[in-house]
Amino acid sequence: MADNTKDTKEDIKAPKPAANLQIKTPKGTRDWHGPDMLLREQLFQTVSDVFKRHGGTPLDTPVFELREILAGKYGEDSKLIYDLQDQGGELCSLRYDLTVPFARWLAMTSTQQVKRYHIAKVYRRDQPAIARGRMREFHQCDFDIAGVYDPMIPDAEILRIIVEVFDALKLGITIKLNHRKILDGLFAVAGVPAEKIRTISSAVDKLDKMPWADVKKEMVEEKGLPEEVADKIGVYVQNAGNITDIINYIKADADLPTNDDIKAGIHDMELLAAYLEALEVTDKVSFDLSLARGLDYYTGLIFEVINKPEPVADGDKKKKSKKDDPASQVGSIAAGGRYDNLVGMYGKKQIPCVGISFGIDRIFTILKARGENDIKKREVDVFVMAFGGGKDFDGLLVERMKIARQLWNAGIRAEYMAKAKPKLQAQFKAAEGTPLGVILGEEELKAGQVRLKKLDQGQGQKDEGNLVPIENLAEEVQKLLL
Amino acid sequence: MADNTKDTKEDIKAPKPAANLQIKTPKGTRDWHGPDMLLREQLFQTVSDVFKRHGGTPLDTPVFELREILAGKYGEDSKLIYDLQDQGGELCSLRYDLTVPFARWLAMTSTQQVKRYHIAKVYRRDQPAIARGRMREFHQCDFDIAGVYDPMIPDAEILRIIVEVFDALKLGITIKLNHRKILDGLFAVAGVPAEKIRTISSAVDKLDKMPWADVKKEMVEEKGLPEEVADKIGVYVQNAGNITDIINYIKADADLPTNDDIKAGIHDMELLAAYLEALEVTDKVSFDLSLARGLDYYTGLIFEVINKPEPVADGDKKKKSKKDDPASQVGSIAAGGRYDNLVGMYGKKQIPCVGISFGIDRIFTILKARGENDIKKREVDVFVMAFGGGKDFDGLLVERMKIARQLWNAGIRAEYMAKAKPKLQAQFKAAEGTPLGVILGEEELKAGQVRLKKLDQGQGQKDEGNLVPIENLAEEVQKLLL
Repeated sequence: MADNTKDTKEDIKAPKPAANLQIKTPKGTRDWHGPDMLLREQLFQTVSDVFKRHGGTPLDTPVFELREILAGKYGEDSKLIYDLQDQGGELCSLRYDLTVPFARWLAMTSTQQVKRYHIAKVYRRDQPAIARGRMREFHQCDFDIAGVYDPMIPDAEILRIIVEVFDALKLGITIKLNHRKILDGLFAVAGVPAEKIRTISSAVDKLDKMPWADVKKEMVEEKGLPEEVADKIGVYVQNAGNITDIINYIKADADLPTNDDIKAGIHDMELLAAYLEALEVTDKVSFDLSLARGLDYYTGLIFEVINKPEPVADGDKKKKSKKDDPASQVGSIAAGGRYDNLVGMYGKKQIPCVGISFGIDRIFTILKARGENDIKKREVDVFVMAFGGGKDFDGLLVERMKIARQLWNAGIRAEYMAKAKPKLQAQFKAAEGTPLGVILGEEELKAGQVRLKKLDQGQGQKDEGNLVPIENLAEEVQKLLL
Repeated sequence: MADNTKDTKEDIKAPKPAANLQIKTPKGTRDWHGPDMLLREQLFQTVSDVFKRHGGTPLDTPVFELREILAGKYGEDSKLIYDLQDQGGELCSLRYDLTVPFARWLAMTSTQQVKRYHIAKVYRRDQPAIARGRMREFHQCDFDIAGVYDPMIPDAEILRIIVEVFDALKLGITIKLNHRKILDGLFAVAGVPAEKIRTISSAVDKLDKMPWADVKKEMVEEKGLPEEVADKIGVYVQNAGNITDIINYIKADADLPTNDDIKAGIHDMELLAAYLEALEVTDKVSFDLSLARGLDYYTGLIFEVINKPEPVADGDKKKKSKKDDPASQVGSIAAGGRYDNLVGMYGKKQIPCVGISFGIDRIFTILKARGENDIKKREVDVFVMAFGGGKDFDGLLVERMKIARQLWNAGIRAEYMAKAKPKLQAQFKAAEGTPLGVILGEEELKAGQVRLKKLDQGQGQKDEGNLVPIENLAEEVQKLLL
């Protein structure tokens, strides 16, 4: 019967896998480990340090939401939402971004003012483009300021946060700015019928990817806009420069200054210009009348960050070709804007918001291409080894454990080889990359001592390390780690 | 036409929400913010510090896996898995735990040895019990050692990690231990037919929730076990105590020591006893022959951690009633074991593993009940305020921004009120909880100075703070923050 038992157990424990089973992660997803994971952790740390510096508090929401919460928020892109199967009970979908869950949270709590940040994964059934950092499961990293404040003060702080984040990452950026009211007013003045404003806006949004002639063709031939209206838009939206210059350009126009939306937008931009000056952000921004942003819910300032040298000064003209440079392939690396009506869509209360979303995976791709994950971060401080020879040598396993325990108690990161009788050579190999070694020998242990040795100088050296009394070991290790 | 435009835009921006739309998170899920979120972050930090001290490296996997990867791993509990809807392409499910994704990762990479940790959410369509910290979306926090090593060395380190984690959290624990081979051998010796071993094992697993009489009834009446076999099991599994005592009990038995599984298990437990002694874990463990653990994939040592005073010494007998104490309601707060065949189930390679999973949400519930999230962590260091009176006072907004910018540049967490002309009283209210205030006045600014004031002494005090030259402000603030 013992044999029977054994057979049954083996059957339970190790069933044959399906012959066609692919061992992989789902399409558009990946695992994170090793240098990539360490670089990602470092990136999260840098970004959240900046967020905290501005009084940000973390929020975490469930990975899925009621399907109705997401409905009607993403326009055409709704087809990219991952739905959970109906297994009885509520219908849910994976979150598509972090903004709608934030708005849902604001609508259901008593919060009136908050600076919240959220670093988490979001899900889109898009075509993956891994080299460019575009995945189906990817990270967003959002900072939003919600609440009623005086105009443009939170907006200016959001732009300041963008500058601090990319300064900390040593990435040159330009922040393209525009204002939804100015853009909408400009389309109205040019003669775009009200019902075509959104579709013309999304054509204009393509100006960073295709030349004006093609955009115009789309407007006239596909979207039925009269050619003279398209030409008028063409004149307007090809203007970009510093905020004051573009404000002056608009004010000098014969028609634009009479439009109410444009008046309101110009007032905002004038306030913003003064605040950005105080916050030392001015040099990084470009007021770009072609910036449109896809999402419907923006109501005021909109912005998009691209990774490139500041527009002001650029001495170094010898650049790698665009093809080799991942920065030129990833598109915008952060984007956001003001959305004053989204929370109100849930019918509970109205809270104006402005926020920024960092494309962490794209930023990761740039940092990685720059070689920043080559630095192997050491994982332990001390490797505890046994030295001894002869057939009687018992490997000192229990003694190595005791020494490691003493180091752990002092908060020191320590390891030993999980082998009862390891060879010295094997232990040195396992210790590679660890700065310190503690070497145990039977004679020294009898005298209450161990050898403490710096390993990063190379094991080839004949340095045997220093004899240290066991009771002082943790202290001596800490001195060397400083 | 301008009016038309306006109407259309309003329609786009603020559609009426469905009348029956519930603004909430899905059943069994929650948001995290404020004191709860800070306590959770602190908990994650404590746990990952211990993991790193033992050479652990982080792994992150996608929130969903190919459905076939999860298939056949969870026995009856498979019905609790969340499936994604079939929207074309691969069939996927949300992860049910972090162990199977780890095994999948091991199977598809070249990794032979690793200590990995993973703190992330997992998903089970279970009946939520929020008061006990049981949710449908909840955290797991796993540390596993994978690879071929000498017997029981990694197992002992896992138990040591458990002790370090709960020491750091100041939670008294008992670790219940058992060995699958000993348990299976014991059932075989008692006369349980091979095909009934798993079902009898799961009946025994209930001994911590129901009395022996009820467990016996289930075995005999529901599962058809002869009464004398059940009685024999009853004698065996009611034994628990320190490792050496239970080893001696088994060795002294007439039948048990002849079983090959038991022999192998005893050999493991003897090694473990020596290692736990060296690692100072002995006092926290109880070798409990009734511990069975539900999951099929365990092959060796199994363990479960309960939150209660150590079995050794307990002077304080005056405890709150069990009903009031969340610790008594949450069940096990960590559990794990050795699973040598799981990676091999993917047919690529065989890698033995041992690991522990911490029930972070249950631990959170206990810490919260202990009042640990009452401490309001301050979110900023400095609040920048303007002081002035009269109708001409302009609120010094741009000046407040400049001072904050200077503090941010020095890495100091600073805020100002987002109002152009704020009242002093309102600024003091907004600054509540912030340790330092910088107060700007027109006269002082002309002299290149600001006032730096400790706020936590109460604003009622007539202390006006110290005049500080603006160029030294960051430095002076840093001194006061130390």
